[in-house]
Amino acid sequence: MDTDIAPDKVRKNRYPLRRSEGQGRWAGVEVMPYKEDERALFKSITRQVLFSDPEMQGELRYFEVAPGGYSTLERHEHMHGVMVLHGHGHCLVGRRVRRIAPYDLVTVPPWTWHQFRAGADEPLGFLCLVNAQRDRPLVPSKAELAELRRDPAIDAFLRGAAAE
Amino acid sequence: MDTDIAPDKVRKNRYPLRRSEGQGRWAGVEVMPYKEDERALFKSITRQVLFSDPEMQGELRYFEVAPGGYSTLERHEHMHGVMVLHGHGHCLVGRRVRRIAPYDLVTVPPWTWHQFRAGADEPLGFLCLVNAQRDRPLVPSKAELAELRRDPAIDAFLRGAAAE
Repeated sequence: MDTDIAPDKVRKNRYPLRRSEGQGRWAGVEVMPYKEDERALFKSITRQVLFSDPEMQGELRYFEVAPGGYSTLERHEHMHGVMVLHGHGHCLVGRRVRRIAPYDLVTVPPWTWHQFRAGADEPLGFLCLVNAQRDRPLVPSKAELAELRRDPAIDAFLRGAAAE
Repeated sequence: MDTDIAPDKVRKNRYPLRRSEGQGRWAGVEVMPYKEDERALFKSITRQVLFSDPEMQGELRYFEVAPGGYSTLERHEHMHGVMVLHGHGHCLVGRRVRRIAPYDLVTVPPWTWHQFRAGADEPLGFLCLVNAQRDRPLVPSKAELAELRRDPAIDAFLRGAAAE
C-alpha cells in the first residue's frame, strides 16, 4: 500500500509527493477524458492537472493523445509551453507542421492556431504550461478552416496524413 | 543542419520549436551553471530556462544535478512544482526525506525547507514550475540548520547519506 497519498486529508495538488505509476499516470492524479461530441473537434485525448494551486500563477498539465487522435484545433490569447514526454506525432503551430519527439519544446504564441496529433502507432504524451488565469479558446470558423486548408501541408496534417 | 533555430531572429524562448538534443539538452537553450562559492550552498547543478515569456505568468526550468551534487537548501514564499525527468535521488521537503525517480511529482509549499540531491552514480534532472514573479529564497541560519539536523533522517540527507 502506498501511504504517500491521502487525497482527502490534503489540499489537492499540494501533496508533497505524487509517485509516477508508469507512463503518463500518477498516484492521486485524475485522468480526465474529454467528452467527444458530434463536432469532432478533438479525438482520443485525456488531460491530467499535475500542478495547480491558488498560489501558483502557472499550471502544468499532461495531455495524452491516443494513436490517431488529436487535440482541438484552436487559438487564444494565452500562450502554451509544451514539452513532449512520450511518443511521436506532429504539431501545427501557426502555419507550420512539425514532427515532434520526446523532450522537444513547442511554444504556441498568442492567437496562433495549433493542434497536436499522435502518430498512427503510439500515443503522444506532452506537458503543457499555461497561465492559471486564461481566456477561453476559439475554434476556427468555416472560412478560417478553409483558408488554413488551402495550404497543402496543413490540409494533409488535418487529414491525419502529416509528413514533413 | 537544423534550421529550426535562429536565435537572433526571434524572441528568446518564443521560437516555435526547440529540439531535444539528448538528455537534458535542447537546441537554443543555454546551460547555466551556478557559480560555486565558499559557502558551498549547492554543488554541481545547472539550470536551463525552458519557457519564460512576458505573457506567461509561470516559468518552466530544467535543473540537472551531477552525481553527488545538490541544490541549495532554501525556502521562500513562492511554490515549486517539480517533476523528475531523469535519474534518481532524494529530496527534502519540510521535514521529510523521500527517494525520487523519473516522473515523480514533488510540490514544495510556501516557506518550506527543500533540497534536491542526486544519487552517487547518476545525474538527477528535474523540471521546476515557478511563478515568473517571485520572492528571493532564504537559506537557513546556523540555528535553523542545527534544528533541522537534530532529525537523524535530515542529518543523514544533508550529509549525502540519504536512505528512506
